[in-house]
Amino acid sequence: VVEKQLSQPGGGQGPTVGVIGATGFAGALAAYLLWRHPRFNLTYLTGRSEVGYRHLDLYPRYRVPLTVEELDLDRHGEVEVAVVAYPHGASAPVVKALRDRGVRVLDLSADCRLRSRERYEAYYGSHPHPELLGQAVYGIPELHRDRLPGAELVALPGCFPTAALLALAPLARAGLIADVVIDAKTGVSGAGRQPTPFTHFSNVHASVVPYRVASHRHTPEIEEQLELLGAPLAVQFQPHLVPLDEGELLTCYVTPREPLSAQALQDLYEAAYAGERFIELAASPPTLREVQETNYCRLLAVYDGHTGKVLVFAAIDNLWKGTSSQAIQCLNAIYGYPEDEGLC
Amino acid sequence: VVEKQLSQPGGGQGPTVGVIGATGFAGALAAYLLWRHPRFNLTYLTGRSEVGYRHLDLYPRYRVPLTVEELDLDRHGEVEVAVVAYPHGASAPVVKALRDRGVRVLDLSADCRLRSRERYEAYYGSHPHPELLGQAVYGIPELHRDRLPGAELVALPGCFPTAALLALAPLARAGLIADVVIDAKTGVSGAGRQPTPFTHFSNVHASVVPYRVASHRHTPEIEEQLELLGAPLAVQFQPHLVPLDEGELLTCYVTPREPLSAQALQDLYEAAYAGERFIELAASPPTLREVQETNYCRLLAVYDGHTGKVLVFAAIDNLWKGTSSQAIQCLNAIYGYPEDEGLC
Amino acid sequence: VVEKQLSQPGGGQGPTVGVIGATGFAGALAAYLLWRHPRFNLTYLTGRSEVGYRHLDLYPRYRVPLTVEELDLDRHGEVEVAVVAYPHGASAPVVKALRDRGVRVLDLSADCRLRSRERYEAYYGSHPHPELLGQAVYGIPELHRDRLPGAELVALPGCFPTAALLALAPLARAGLIADVVIDAKTGVSGAGRQPTPFTHFSNVHASVVPYRVASHRHTPEIEEQLELLGAPLAVQFQPHLVPLDEGELLTCYVTPREPLSAQALQDLYEAAYAGERFIELAASPPTLREVQETNYCRLLAVYDGHTGKVLVFAAIDNLWKGTSSQAIQCLNAIYGYPEDEGLC
Amino acid sequence: VVEKQLSQPGGGQGPTVGVIGATGFAGALAAYLLWRHPRFNLTYLTGRSEVGYRHLDLYPRYRVPLTVEELDLDRHGEVEVAVVAYPHGASAPVVKALRDRGVRVLDLSADCRLRSRERYEAYYGSHPHPELLGQAVYGIPELHRDRLPGAELVALPGCFPTAALLALAPLARAGLIADVVIDAKTGVSGAGRQPTPFTHFSNVHASVVPYRVASHRHTPEIEEQLELLGAPLAVQFQPHLVPLDEGELLTCYVTPREPLSAQALQDLYEAAYAGERFIELAASPPTLREVQETNYCRLLAVYDGHTGKVLVFAAIDNLWKGTSSQAIQCLNAIYGYPEDEGLC
Repeated sequence: VVEKQLSQPGGGQGPTVGVIGATGFAGALAAYLLWRHPRFNLTYLTGRSEVGYRHLDLYPRYRVPLTVEELDLDRHGEVEVAVVAYPHGASAPVVKALRDRGVRVLDLSADCRLRSRERYEAYYGSHPHPELLGQAVYGIPELHRDRLPGAELVALPGCFPTAALLALAPLARAGLIADVVIDAKTGVSGAGRQPTPFTHFSNVHASVVPYRVASHRHTPEIEEQLELLGAPLAVQFQPHLVPLDEGELLTCYVTPREPLSAQALQDLYEAAYAGERFIELAASPPTLREVQETNYCRLLAVYDGHTGKVLVFAAIDNLWKGTSSQAIQCLNAIYGYPEDEGLC
Repeated sequence: VVEKQLSQPGGGQGPTVGVIGATGFAGALAAYLLWRHPRFNLTYLTGRSEVGYRHLDLYPRYRVPLTVEELDLDRHGEVEVAVVAYPHGASAPVVKALRDRGVRVLDLSADCRLRSRERYEAYYGSHPHPELLGQAVYGIPELHRDRLPGAELVALPGCFPTAALLALAPLARAGLIADVVIDAKTGVSGAGRQPTPFTHFSNVHASVVPYRVASHRHTPEIEEQLELLGAPLAVQFQPHLVPLDEGELLTCYVTPREPLSAQALQDLYEAAYAGERFIELAASPPTLREVQETNYCRLLAVYDGHTGKVLVFAAIDNLWKGTSSQAIQCLNAIYGYPEDEGLC
Repeated sequence: VVEKQLSQPGGGQGPTVGVIGATGFAGALAAYLLWRHPRFNLTYLTGRSEVGYRHLDLYPRYRVPLTVEELDLDRHGEVEVAVVAYPHGASAPVVKALRDRGVRVLDLSADCRLRSRERYEAYYGSHPHPELLGQAVYGIPELHRDRLPGAELVALPGCFPTAALLALAPLARAGLIADVVIDAKTGVSGAGRQPTPFTHFSNVHASVVPYRVASHRHTPEIEEQLELLGAPLAVQFQPHLVPLDEGELLTCYVTPREPLSAQALQDLYEAAYAGERFIELAASPPTLREVQETNYCRLLAVYDGHTGKVLVFAAIDNLWKGTSSQAIQCLNAIYGYPEDEGLC
Repeated sequence: VVEKQLSQPGGGQGPTVGVIGATGFAGALAAYLLWRHPRFNLTYLTGRSEVGYRHLDLYPRYRVPLTVEELDLDRHGEVEVAVVAYPHGASAPVVKALRDRGVRVLDLSADCRLRSRERYEAYYGSHPHPELLGQAVYGIPELHRDRLPGAELVALPGCFPTAALLALAPLARAGLIADVVIDAKTGVSGAGRQPTPFTHFSNVHASVVPYRVASHRHTPEIEEQLELLGAPLAVQFQPHLVPLDEGELLTCYVTPREPLSAQALQDLYEAAYAGERFIELAASPPTLREVQETNYCRLLAVYDGHTGKVLVFAAIDNLWKGTSSQAIQCLNAIYGYPEDEGLC
């Protein structure tokens, strides 16, 4: 068994990057994307378990030959940027420590996403470092691009908020959302690598499983961001597990504040996303096959004259645009590289 | 290759039954259920194709040794009951001819479901025998049980209306529905046995595919029946194809006319379905695994205090409770047999 | 949430039965099959975990309302028959204790299957009660029917040996097997209910995973039984996990001792299985859809003139004919009931 | 709906290439790989159907904006290279016509693969241009690299022969194969884009389907190439459809001519594939997830002391290394580019 590549295929002469928590699905994918990126210099991977294994032993299909190390802030606090892929609660102390050492951080957890401590604590319990709340740029480049260049702390959104906000932003900014129901269908990878009764093949296969009924943690995040976009409202968000691995499709049912022509709707979305590299306005309903293992978000907005509602469909890969490839997109924006560098 | 069973395992000394259109998924399942039923005497199967094949050559897992015949109304109009499993448009002339010969008919197509010709024609085009509209009992025993004994013509509902109406009937009857969004996730068997780009494995696998956006033919049927139950409104109904074969899960988002306590909601559903053999009020969200290949409809109604909406989840097997086993349940009700005879 | 059925739907006035280890996949299915059986009186279920839960809380689709109890041999040793569904090693002591109390036992584990202690220990480690080896009837009715009536201890075969032996018995008895390769494709349920990296949806989905290369524990069992049938040889057995839940298909590549005509081959299988209720000789290659959730084994034997080899395909449901429904078939045989009672 | 990219992302200033038959799975993927390739200049796509559609309307996930044209040899015979992705029988006349015009051709069909007309006709019927047989380089770079630079006609192997030959070549060259059984498990994409009962989701889902029993057309191709490698023998090759889209896993059961130590086996494979960019010798059994959507072939060879057989597992993506990405690898070799250009 011979190693094929000991150096980064893309070159990697640019900023040094480490991935903290590279053994879970999101961190492992971030490591893969950084490894093949033409600019970033991936210098270490850490894990809370499986220390000493090579990344490619855990994820053969990513073919990253680096070895998983134990986190040592004295050593690992020397990179220029860190992608932190820890669960919420566990992430904040690491983010804090890295920021104290001057390391730029992209946090994939929920710990830096919200501005409101009240919202955080209602859904996640007490926050280990509430001073982090409100400090980060919310990492959807299409919505917060102007704040990304040079940003020191970026909170990557949850996968569902990414799709929901890209789907709803044009309507929210136009003040058109009176009410919204968001019905999500998602693959199992969002539940992580941990084997549980929920992730057991026999639970997922050939079934549809609604979960976290009227209580999903991405709800406050969607609401806070919609409010910032001009649409303060209580959002009905409901996810369903479907038998697939990667990808999520959201169907948003919007009751508009005022009647809207099909043409006006189309114009609104085209204006909002003109020139966006990773947003595709589809002519027919988006499907997951079209976005899996890509950084694309594919959208279709339809006005239903029968009910007067607007339907917006959004498809993304939850691990890519919903998490890790969006982190790379943000990194590119931070450093002024083309946003699609390493992602096409 | 030896035949195992040439006579009906259940006995079948009761009323003679034929299945017209027994080569498609719904008709084939109806034949299977009648073959193993302890009462009905299944005397023939017809097909518009594959005449001369045995049912078990086409559907080995059903193990029905009867041969598919060409429809001959002179011969086949002699049974006591016929289950007609033809596509809409093609069904009406056959139903008409059988009724003219005095045969009791259970029609699985859309041709006898609606009362309003206008609604039919808006979604299906011109009706070959509009005089059939409004003549049939709408075959959901839980909602129309009193009209079933002795009924001569029963229109089996669409699979989505079955689940939607069982989910919403308690709220509709109580006059509580101000608005409703119905988001459906369904397996591919609802699209039938015909190989098409839609039913190709590569289209369905690992994907979610929204289809018939804001235009599905089950919409008018749901609306007409809700109106009869006391809830006249425009329904937002949207189906999505998910990677599985049999089963559908509907998530209904109801805006209630007035605030509703969780207890009141639970009482409403328990009162509505007390003693119903095939309705299960679940303690946690229903999933498809729990209802596949059964006549059960599994429901959960939840009040979301955050948004003030009511969520109702309904899971059925689209081919069973959504079509063919419900037809058997109706047949049992017509003849005064226990409703679960041959179905448990 | 109202209970629908507190008594056994089938009646259950016959012999009292308990299922020990009813929370795993095999025990849970055995409980379901016994609950709906028209003769047996299912009096208790025990579990090594989840004591106090109802079976239907763990397996809603089986709808068995009994509560899982902790095993108490003083109480539970009073039934007439026990189905023991424990892992190997854990099973033997329970089987021993029950036999000491005069309880008839059907053991689903490996602990009573083999005759050779050497073979057992080479694959499973030391045996807690080696005196049990060689005591049980090997529970494939089609091969050992004469020893089943009144049997006090039956060892249900592994799922792979069931299919392999039904596939190969006619050739083995005729002394025709010079060499055999058995390639198995199986669903994940054979790996049990425990969430592990192996049973995680992301491991199984869209993949094929060979496992236990040249070392599967069912190998010695197949070899010992083939030897008894007249074919002592080293068997190449190799399983592969495929993305489905229940069912296994074995492809057996036999090098025959002498040339064999296609007709002779067909005659051999028809003679071997004439009148067998649950063996189907298929005209085309068997598939899993045809046997899932049934007690059938579907076979096709083909002579390949190009290579001179015989291919035998065997399809069964690993949890049904491969384990739990075969146990019911054995129970029926023990008590002299029709073998298909409660299984069709 | 705005086009994102009208020029090739990779640049494409090199040799002009056309894809003939770009609407099927293999041709569509070849078009995608050429479109994103940094060297080749993809100038046209043709189809036998769907002329006038853009590639991205048919395959949105590939995002190739070119329009499908009708084949016009006068115009389309002007490119430097053509990839022909037609079915066997239909391909030969086009290959002939293109070669007559001096166009370099990579043929994905079976029409140029075999040397023996007898073998071709026994499996495919009469050959429209038998003079093409034996003219092409057989396009597995790992086995025929020396003949590729400057080659004018390359026949891409079938997907199963690619995996089988890479699995068996080291043993064949060493004269070690006395007998071999090849058991293949494959996804449905190998059956093509045409909707048929075989490719219907309901046929594939949750099942295993053996097909073309003892008669698959890839058998003579494997045999002819093994013979060239030094192992003339009748091969038992048997494919099985499993519920996934892309990928195939072959399990080869080799009876060696002489005993072989585990170390000798490992040395043989390491020597054979040292330095091969796309061959991975795995430490544990290869799985499909590790090779999907890549040009890798992942191998594991194991000696089973119990039976004296050698097992070789080979995993590839049937559409990639099994067809279209291997064509790109060949193109790179023809032109002297790094073999992994555009493929990593």
